[in-house]
Amino acid sequence: MKATDMNKPDNRAAAESSAITPRARDYSQWYLDVIKAAGLAEHSAVRGCMVVRPHGYAIWEKMQRELDDRFKATGHENAYFPLFIPLSFFSREEKHASGFAKECAVVTHHRLKAIDGEIVPDPESKLEEPLVVRPTSEMIIWSQYKNWIQSYRDLPLLINQWANVVRWEMRTRLFLRTAEFLWQEGHTAHATEKEALEETWRMLDVYADFAENVMAVPVIKGRKTEGERFAGAVETLSIEGMMQDGKALQMGTSHYLGQNFSKGADVKFQNKDGELEFVYATSWGVSTRLVGALIMTHSDDSGLVLPPRLAPVQTVVVPIFKNDAERARTVDEARKVAAELKALGVAVRVDDRDGIMPGAKYYEWEGKGVPLRIEVGPKDLEKGSLCVARRFVTEIAGEAPEAQRRRRKAFLPRAEAIASIVPTLEAMQKELFARAGAARASRTRVLDKIEDYGKFFGEEGGGFAWVHWAGDSAQEEEMAKRFETSIRCVPFEDQIPPEARGEGSCILTGKPSKQRVLMAKSY
Amino acid sequence: MKATDMNKPDNRAAAESSAITPRARDYSQWYLDVIKAAGLAEHSAVRGCMVVRPHGYAIWEKMQRELDDRFKATGHENAYFPLFIPLSFFSREEKHASGFAKECAVVTHHRLKAIDGEIVPDPESKLEEPLVVRPTSEMIIWSQYKNWIQSYRDLPLLINQWANVVRWEMRTRLFLRTAEFLWQEGHTAHATEKEALEETWRMLDVYADFAENVMAVPVIKGRKTEGERFAGAVETLSIEGMMQDGKALQMGTSHYLGQNFSKGADVKFQNKDGELEFVYATSWGVSTRLVGALIMTHSDDSGLVLPPRLAPVQTVVVPIFKNDAERARTVDEARKVAAELKALGVAVRVDDRDGIMPGAKYYEWEGKGVPLRIEVGPKDLEKGSLCVARRFVTEIAGEAPEAQRRRRKAFLPRAEAIASIVPTLEAMQKELFARAGAARASRTRVLDKIEDYGKFFGEEGGGFAWVHWAGDSAQEEEMAKRFETSIRCVPFEDQIPPEARGEGSCILTGKPSKQRVLMAKSY
Repeated sequence: MKATDMNKPDNRAAAESSAITPRARDYSQWYLDVIKAAGLAEHSAVRGCMVVRPHGYAIWEKMQRELDDRFKATGHENAYFPLFIPLSFFSREEKHASGFAKECAVVTHHRLKAIDGEIVPDPESKLEEPLVVRPTSEMIIWSQYKNWIQSYRDLPLLINQWANVVRWEMRTRLFLRTAEFLWQEGHTAHATEKEALEETWRMLDVYADFAENVMAVPVIKGRKTEGERFAGAVETLSIEGMMQDGKALQMGTSHYLGQNFSKGADVKFQNKDGELEFVYATSWGVSTRLVGALIMTHSDDSGLVLPPRLAPVQTVVVPIFKNDAERARTVDEARKVAAELKALGVAVRVDDRDGIMPGAKYYEWEGKGVPLRIEVGPKDLEKGSLCVARRFVTEIAGEAPEAQRRRRKAFLPRAEAIASIVPTLEAMQKELFARAGAARASRTRVLDKIEDYGKFFGEEGGGFAWVHWAGDSAQEEEMAKRFETSIRCVPFEDQIPPEARGEGSCILTGKPSKQRVLMAKSY
Repeated sequence: MKATDMNKPDNRAAAESSAITPRARDYSQWYLDVIKAAGLAEHSAVRGCMVVRPHGYAIWEKMQRELDDRFKATGHENAYFPLFIPLSFFSREEKHASGFAKECAVVTHHRLKAIDGEIVPDPESKLEEPLVVRPTSEMIIWSQYKNWIQSYRDLPLLINQWANVVRWEMRTRLFLRTAEFLWQEGHTAHATEKEALEETWRMLDVYADFAENVMAVPVIKGRKTEGERFAGAVETLSIEGMMQDGKALQMGTSHYLGQNFSKGADVKFQNKDGELEFVYATSWGVSTRLVGALIMTHSDDSGLVLPPRLAPVQTVVVPIFKNDAERARTVDEARKVAAELKALGVAVRVDDRDGIMPGAKYYEWEGKGVPLRIEVGPKDLEKGSLCVARRFVTEIAGEAPEAQRRRRKAFLPRAEAIASIVPTLEAMQKELFARAGAARASRTRVLDKIEDYGKFFGEEGGGFAWVHWAGDSAQEEEMAKRFETSIRCVPFEDQIPPEARGEGSCILTGKPSKQRVLMAKSY
């Protein structure tokens, strides 16, 4: 390659990165543009099924590792159960079955055949019993637990599965709602209700810890109302995050299933007194939906913003050169810098691609959410310095643009620059969490009058509303119709901000209420 | 719990471990018994689908980690593509489609409905186009690559996917042949045939490295004949291992697909000269079948034997006690020993369960293939020693039983015992590879006469036969009928033992042959 060719701009990459619609103009389009520019996912030829592209999958892998470590630290083991559920199992737990019956992929044949030149399911291969592609695995897993559980000595049974599931969604949206998605599902069995409830709460805490300390997304923990409960659960707990458009996103659920599934699958155990009892169950899950939550919490009009703990590349090193001689020297230095950072535990990549202008590279990596960029130019080599650029800085009210620019992009002596990377990544992780918390606070209201409620979710754009509630399910529907809001959760007491605590009167009916609930529009 | 209760034998566990049929009596039953005693997998309520139990899944996870590291080190990224393939895609690559058409799970409906009290697929939810559950993903992935590849700058595209696939098998066997299985599938795109061929060979080497250095299974690398080739491939390479019954097991395949799939999906790129060309492709995969290979290569009549590099637990520490005071002291010491080993990087577990006799614990962990066991009894505490027991020792011809027992179970001063663990694990890894190599050598023959061939695969029990071959596919079938053998591969020249190299005459037809091929019975 000739030196003159080297910095030819890659128009395609630049065009792709620059095509991000501002949030303020069109939030939905912004979301899709961020996904496209970052190369996270795209629609496939199969209705409602997405393709998770390498950068999106790398983020999911980081999430998996963090979650899996937490599951194992709390005593769980992974296993794998079949993709298919025999149709007859759907008569075992009625509520559960009817909750999923409307969105099932059903396998009815096991062979293809060419008939009159057209390939069709071979009529002679029709299954005696159709198989349902799992929408969730309670039914198939509990049919297996029957073989595993005889005595209290076999309990607790603490199993998790990483798997794909299918729910036939009519209106799909990348990561948030797709026909097939990836998730983990925990399925545990216990000798007592108390232990099962403890597990339900414990796993919600694991999710909240992951959301806040790894994803940098503050969440509110609470109980779901009956209408929002998992089909077949006695109690559903959830963590709820706020997206940048003020809508709530349910980020994880943990269910106490009581004896519903052990009765359906006839799973009894001999307790310490020698009596036979049905087993108590929990299930809990998070999915690739979390990637959607991540995007919508932190990203900006330049594209994806990633918390360092989930960034597949935490620092990119970009050599800058105009000719072969400069190329050799700056690439050499870039590699040395990368090796030093790698030794410090930083996930680092050198972008020494030819034919792409440095500016286009910066654009591309910003779009992909890489937290830090180090630029290595010929002048930096002379001076023994490095330029360190942050993907974002937290806004300081009244700060001069020039001062902010200096915080965003600093020229530092080489050793100082390298020593700054790990602390800067740690600081950015915390800043994102604080920033998301501040954004949530600015869109949270404690409301007592239905007029204020209407105004908040109308012209003010909405967010989280702490309101007293004592209505019935018909009145919940009324709220949904009038304001497009729902009860996201009945929060645990310690989750309610001090100014919203205490008893009061229902915002709609005026009936007495013991505590406020969290209302919001939601995904 | 009372002290007198503590060592009550757990009859269930002991019975399960002791129920292993000796290999010599019934090899097939031995295989199933090893799987059951180790808790690796079991059949499910769904025809042909297995449940991978926690210990089996933990081994698969260790395999995944080792393979994934190797894929990433060779420049590959992970992604995820849909579970379903539209039926119409099956007309795009005819050979490929017809190769899989006979064993497909076909989704035809997307909703269930209760009709006359019976839950059935809702007739009104019939899909316009049926969906096939992926038996492999070439067709869906190449339809997506069409969006990703425009120019030579987009190549090579090096993608891997970890996924479940479904092939409707009529005769299933845990791990070796199941309707659903877990695997990885690499799908790469290249600008030239040369690069694609290099990739095909490179990934076969990755598989061979993994098989030999991690699984401790020696393999032979070579080409498949036309009849054994992957449907749609130009060339299929494989690694072949020998199981303890002398049969070959195909452990991994790497395919050069030429332009077959890029033509089917119309994926062209602009080459450096500005011309449009079809892309060159490879695909390669290994599956949970490898767990079956692992079991059948190393295990014995006491159960599973695991190479240390794939053992989820490398060392189990068992405290021995008769009363509460002894329990406290030995458990305390066991935990200290475990902590010291953990610090050395050893995957260690303390088995301090009450109510199970030490002997039953030993049995159970032996059945699970844990390479080393440390026993901590009250006398060991007094003496400052530890007992280190190996899961296996390599037989030495003529060795006295007492000498072998001493090698199997050694009482060592505490510090010496702890320092011995890592080197012993490393030695055991090498011993397993050497042992498997010796077993393979003892059942390998260089044969030139069809009578000797018949005798070898008849009364002598069979194994690997190096024979000259120049027959056609009808004659291959004749060999299969007469001897139940097939050409496992046409090995690369350096894979052929020196005594089997050179030209000769076909063992069946007498026609001239340039090199010997590898013949065997197979799974």
